[in-house]
Amino acid sequence: MIRFYNGRIMTDAFSPVTEGQEVWTDADKIAFVGVPSEEKLKEQTFEREIDLNGDLLMPSFKNAHTHSAMTFLRSYADDLPLQDWLFEQVFPMEAKLDGEKVYWLTKLAVLEYLTTGCTAAFDMYFELDDYVKACTESGFRSVMCGAVSGERDNAKVLEERYLKYNGISPLISFRLGFHAEYTAEKGLMEDIAKLAEKYKQSVSMHSSETAKEVRECVEKYGMTPTELFEGLGIFNYGGACFHCVHLSDNDIEIFKKRGLWAVHCPGSNVKLASGIAPIVKLSQSGVGIALGTDGPASNNCLDMFREMFLMTGLQKILLNDAAACPADMVLDAATRGSALAMGLDDCDVIAEGKQADLIVIDLFRPNMQPMNNIAKNIVYSGSKQNVKMTLCAGRVLYEDGEFFIGEDPKDIYRMANEIISSMK
Amino acid sequence: MIRFYNGRIMTDAFSPVTEGQEVWTDADKIAFVGVPSEEKLKEQTFEREIDLNGDLLMPSFKNAHTHSAMTFLRSYADDLPLQDWLFEQVFPMEAKLDGEKVYWLTKLAVLEYLTTGCTAAFDMYFELDDYVKACTESGFRSVMCGAVSGERDNAKVLEERYLKYNGISPLISFRLGFHAEYTAEKGLMEDIAKLAEKYKQSVSMHSSETAKEVRECVEKYGMTPTELFEGLGIFNYGGACFHCVHLSDNDIEIFKKRGLWAVHCPGSNVKLASGIAPIVKLSQSGVGIALGTDGPASNNCLDMFREMFLMTGLQKILLNDAAACPADMVLDAATRGSALAMGLDDCDVIAEGKQADLIVIDLFRPNMQPMNNIAKNIVYSGSKQNVKMTLCAGRVLYEDGEFFIGEDPKDIYRMANEIISSMK
Repeated sequence: MIRFYNGRIMTDAFSPVTEGQEVWTDADKIAFVGVPSEEKLKEQTFEREIDLNGDLLMPSFKNAHTHSAMTFLRSYADDLPLQDWLFEQVFPMEAKLDGEKVYWLTKLAVLEYLTTGCTAAFDMYFELDDYVKACTESGFRSVMCGAVSGERDNAKVLEERYLKYNGISPLISFRLGFHAEYTAEKGLMEDIAKLAEKYKQSVSMHSSETAKEVRECVEKYGMTPTELFEGLGIFNYGGACFHCVHLSDNDIEIFKKRGLWAVHCPGSNVKLASGIAPIVKLSQSGVGIALGTDGPASNNCLDMFREMFLMTGLQKILLNDAAACPADMVLDAATRGSALAMGLDDCDVIAEGKQADLIVIDLFRPNMQPMNNIAKNIVYSGSKQNVKMTLCAGRVLYEDGEFFIGEDPKDIYRMANEIISSMK
Repeated sequence: MIRFYNGRIMTDAFSPVTEGQEVWTDADKIAFVGVPSEEKLKEQTFEREIDLNGDLLMPSFKNAHTHSAMTFLRSYADDLPLQDWLFEQVFPMEAKLDGEKVYWLTKLAVLEYLTTGCTAAFDMYFELDDYVKACTESGFRSVMCGAVSGERDNAKVLEERYLKYNGISPLISFRLGFHAEYTAEKGLMEDIAKLAEKYKQSVSMHSSETAKEVRECVEKYGMTPTELFEGLGIFNYGGACFHCVHLSDNDIEIFKKRGLWAVHCPGSNVKLASGIAPIVKLSQSGVGIALGTDGPASNNCLDMFREMFLMTGLQKILLNDAAACPADMVLDAATRGSALAMGLDDCDVIAEGKQADLIVIDLFRPNMQPMNNIAKNIVYSGSKQNVKMTLCAGRVLYEDGEFFIGEDPKDIYRMANEIISSMK
């Protein structure tokens, strides 16, 4: 058991920060939240007692859309529009990847997630055996999202993966999905709809990221991507849509009807000049919002603090309203919303029985002072510098700048540089 | 003398990063840049030799627009449009400030500047004796910008300050300026133009920050703020304009003709929903660009990394062009551009004889790997977490998370909280 005491607790984004409460973890779970009696405290033995010294314990961030192993392309092909970047730069380089490379490149991403207080990634990539090895060795939680596209795979492969990876480790799950409408034949999408029906499972994919994508889909099918997927039955059991920049009112109606999650990736959307997603409009329509970084080749970092400020800042600009998208809404998307969009129903908030996916935020840094409003401080002025500790499933993986993932970061950096050098 | 060796050197944003070069500082200046002969090295004694271990030494960031002491209002009155925020929240609270409060609140800002690798602030505020004391005690460089407005002061006060503070310390300078058109009577602005003429000095101010400000100025004077200032002779010796969100083509012509600096504050502009400044258009017209955070009450942080990503990201969105505003342009604005806009002609780049205003960027963190392009890594994925060391005028003020400003940060945090508590 680990005991966190003498600090502040934020159980979820909409609850006030409390002082005096304690949180105890037992193995991978949260065992106790509250003010313990002296008797209860005496009865308990702890393997570690962590004096928070006034700092904040809160639910960790979850990254609801990423391609972790794309770390190798960070700062490699910037300043290009999405379609050119994807087809001319990314796909040819990705063709040179193999399992071992994905293993090291994923570990590099895991290090970065931990520095930003993120304990889980909704990850769409390939070479999944090596990906799973990298995550489980590190103690990092991952929800894999089926990455099949017309060129590479088919629905049979997707089904095999779904059956193979769910249950392979408590840290790993796999959800049905495919890359995007513009890389999938209609037949593949129909097959995926059948899988959704067979397993009564949600399906997730990139959707409505660029105006070009939506325009070409309408030209091809007479429908937006959202309408197309809905018509094919892909959304019958819900799903998460990555990006959602260009949505019609009817699209939003479908989101609402099907309980779809809109996964917002503002850093990637500005860097690739894709646009600003209508997040406030979606939220006001009752659609759940999650937050993701997208891959490090398009962002180029995996920093949930930057995404949080961008989420609120871009909505304020889009709506010409400085009151739009307040801090608690942002914090909720980055923690609870993202967890639920990934199907991590037990990783969303701090409560007894939930998974101990937790972070300690150092409040005694200049950007967190004075403490007029801690939630606003985190969203409007927080940074990775404030992440003092990151725990995933009850294990401390990052503390005071040091990593505890069973691998020397220097070896990971060396491998990442060797991998990209070997490809150039 | 301090010797930096065994690392990478970026002398300015547009030069390639080199390996093998050394930088030596002597008191407040850079004494040597290059590869020393063994003889030269033997002859020299150093008070400290810093093994960079492959990390990057580069010019520090300069914050070209801020109101440092507004730290007390961080996360106090968010989510309001600029004019309401300013007149209903900020001005009434500021009326309760005194010199001692400004002293402590400025020190809090200085701590935060150092964490983001920033060594100088172009600062518009009041209680200047205490402000100067806070900066000089800390070893932090400041360029004060005249803050007179119609309600508080007059041009005589401005002139007194100009004469008093220039020369008061090697770290301090004072430039003519006033708050903004919408807080100044025409007579005050005319008097300031006379001062500009008398001392042949530039004049700086908030300008064209919101559409409302420009519209009301046009209604009042039949001219935009830029045209008004130009007509009054305020710009005869140049100046820096803070924000520049809403500019006409004629305004941009005036900027070009007068060599004005456009000081971009993207974090504040999104947070207050003011809009996106036409930075690429200004730059392509030959106007110099500087970067600032604005005050911590409107941003809410003083993080140059966040500003850098916002600068490029917002231009990409504004112009619907992922190639807009590349990384070297951003890095140049945050270092050289900001220094020159503040009149710090000897703090702009790494070269012999320049001021030793330097930072060490930790490249061996996950967000800086692999090293495909170091400049892009800094702008697109850098964070305060990468600032390993900050030197101002040759003095190490921040290193590995510790501050060396002659004051315990805990005392500064305590005072900041006491100050805001006493005002509520």
